[in-house]
Amino acid sequence: MTSIKDVARDVEMSTATVSRALRGLQGVSDETRARVLESSRRLGYVPSPSAAGLASGHTRTVAVIVPRVTQWFFAAIVQGAEEVLREHGYDLLLYNLAGDASARHRVFETSLLTKRVDAVLVFSLKPSPDELERLSHLGRPVTIVGADMPGWATVRIDDHEAAATATRHLLDLGHERIGYLGGATEGVLDFTAPSARLAGYRGSLEQAGVAQCPELEADGEFTVAGGLRASRDLLARPDRPTAIFAASDEMAIGTLRAARELGLRVPEDVSVIGIDDHEMASYFDLTTVSQPVHEQGRVAAAQVLAALGDEDWRPEQVILPTELVVRRTTSRPQART
Amino acid sequence: MTSIKDVARDVEMSTATVSRALRGLQGVSDETRARVLESSRRLGYVPSPSAAGLASGHTRTVAVIVPRVTQWFFAAIVQGAEEVLREHGYDLLLYNLAGDASARHRVFETSLLTKRVDAVLVFSLKPSPDELERLSHLGRPVTIVGADMPGWATVRIDDHEAAATATRHLLDLGHERIGYLGGATEGVLDFTAPSARLAGYRGSLEQAGVAQCPELEADGEFTVAGGLRASRDLLARPDRPTAIFAASDEMAIGTLRAARELGLRVPEDVSVIGIDDHEMASYFDLTTVSQPVHEQGRVAAAQVLAALGDEDWRPEQVILPTELVVRRTTSRPQART
Repeated sequence: MTSIKDVARDVEMSTATVSRALRGLQGVSDETRARVLESSRRLGYVPSPSAAGLASGHTRTVAVIVPRVTQWFFAAIVQGAEEVLREHGYDLLLYNLAGDASARHRVFETSLLTKRVDAVLVFSLKPSPDELERLSHLGRPVTIVGADMPGWATVRIDDHEAAATATRHLLDLGHERIGYLGGATEGVLDFTAPSARLAGYRGSLEQAGVAQCPELEADGEFTVAGGLRASRDLLARPDRPTAIFAASDEMAIGTLRAARELGLRVPEDVSVIGIDDHEMASYFDLTTVSQPVHEQGRVAAAQVLAALGDEDWRPEQVILPTELVVRRTTSRPQART
Repeated sequence: MTSIKDVARDVEMSTATVSRALRGLQGVSDETRARVLESSRRLGYVPSPSAAGLASGHTRTVAVIVPRVTQWFFAAIVQGAEEVLREHGYDLLLYNLAGDASARHRVFETSLLTKRVDAVLVFSLKPSPDELERLSHLGRPVTIVGADMPGWATVRIDDHEAAATATRHLLDLGHERIGYLGGATEGVLDFTAPSARLAGYRGSLEQAGVAQCPELEADGEFTVAGGLRASRDLLARPDRPTAIFAASDEMAIGTLRAARELGLRVPEDVSVIGIDDHEMASYFDLTTVSQPVHEQGRVAAAQVLAALGDEDWRPEQVILPTELVVRRTTSRPQART
């Protein structure tokens, strides 16, 4: 069987250089890497990454746990993380929970234990105390995106402030009857954003001296379909709101659809604002509070890579900025006729 | 250091059973698995998957190569594959090329060689002859989704027929001046669907005795933004088409937007049809030719798992059905005033 020594002899380099080239590490020129790969193929040498992993203690693989990769928001975070990992020669092991509680259980109970990874990224879900203990036991860098977890490395936006920005925009336009679409999300996807956004909405109303109406708060499940269902109910009320703040753009898109079904004009009859700046938001002319989604994935990946290279690294809490983006779905309320 | 024998002694089972439980294999009850995991944690035993992989020759990991995970279409295929892999105790190593030619080069040149995986799934890109040779050399099951590759296991739709269905729908409504949005897609994402869809469009026109107009064929880049750009040009022509067939729903969504910008009503002034049945299609009332996206991921994953368990397995070409879904963006052409 061909060994790494045979390749090293063939290309007249040290086995260390050959190993670095094959593992995609930095400090190896493209030309050198090409020669090593060509020689490996010609001689039939298949490097054993498992053995290399055992020896160095590194697999150059990072686990990413994500609620549902088919939602643009989560996919965009994954893409951001994947870019940074790839640039540094790391691969991404994807655990997509897809709303499946048993999948979540299996990932935290078994997969992270048996698949040796160098680091873990947890996107948009809040680990339970039990899961946090398991993550601690791994002894690997962990970054959590979208949740506020003191003592852990986190990347997120200020959800309370983002929701307050959206609500104040509607208040400033003169709206007082403002519906809210949020939701607990599914049981297994309990990220912390929903409660912070609800609090931001309520707090802004209170600050403006506007009465809170529990009947105007609805569960849109953070999906288009959920936003559509909840908005049909809200907008069919005789005392319907003049504006709806949806705590995600996908729910807001559902609201736009519900308004159309009910023959209500946006923004004349009802104003709509979301959070995210979803890739489809501009095509719906949706006013929203944008957040840097892709960037959160990049920052999270950079965090764990920094931790891998620095024994004195301490977990950081990174908060990225949000911004009001006014398009055409919000305006002053019209007097009812 | 704690070994698997210590765990086996502790739970009074064979090391084989402990190993199966830790690797998530079938034939182990949930209760047994829970006991083994509890014991492993208590004793501080960390199984070495690398060593296990070397011994058995299996890593229980499947590589998935995808052009761009932020596009719903690709994410939905990944999710379908991930479900099936997870059900069978396999993990998914995600290679997201994100339109980056050097990433593609690296994945085929280095990553697949150095990361030992049990199988490879290639989604929506057509491997070059050189890449096919590398895939062959791996000696692992490979399934390619979305491309027509004789001799390889493939899963796809009949792209020619899907495009013909869309075109015939417009012809049947009485349209003769039918624009087409396709595109070579980016250089690195050369899947075979675009050329087959263009051929299906042209063939249907010819069969109906309708003249082909090269000036009505445009490059929409298979994205919303590209479809918007191309449609602005097509619809601003004095001899604009009465209908546009976009070879993907994302491009069709761009067409709807362009029509709105130009003050054209859909379907009265211009009919629009796509392909996919994108998750947003119903919210745009978009008429389309639906394809089973999620299912293609599931079938592809099931194929490579079947190949892993059967030495006599032969590559199959699976073609999944498509279906015309008529919504509200297509109608008979109106006489111009």
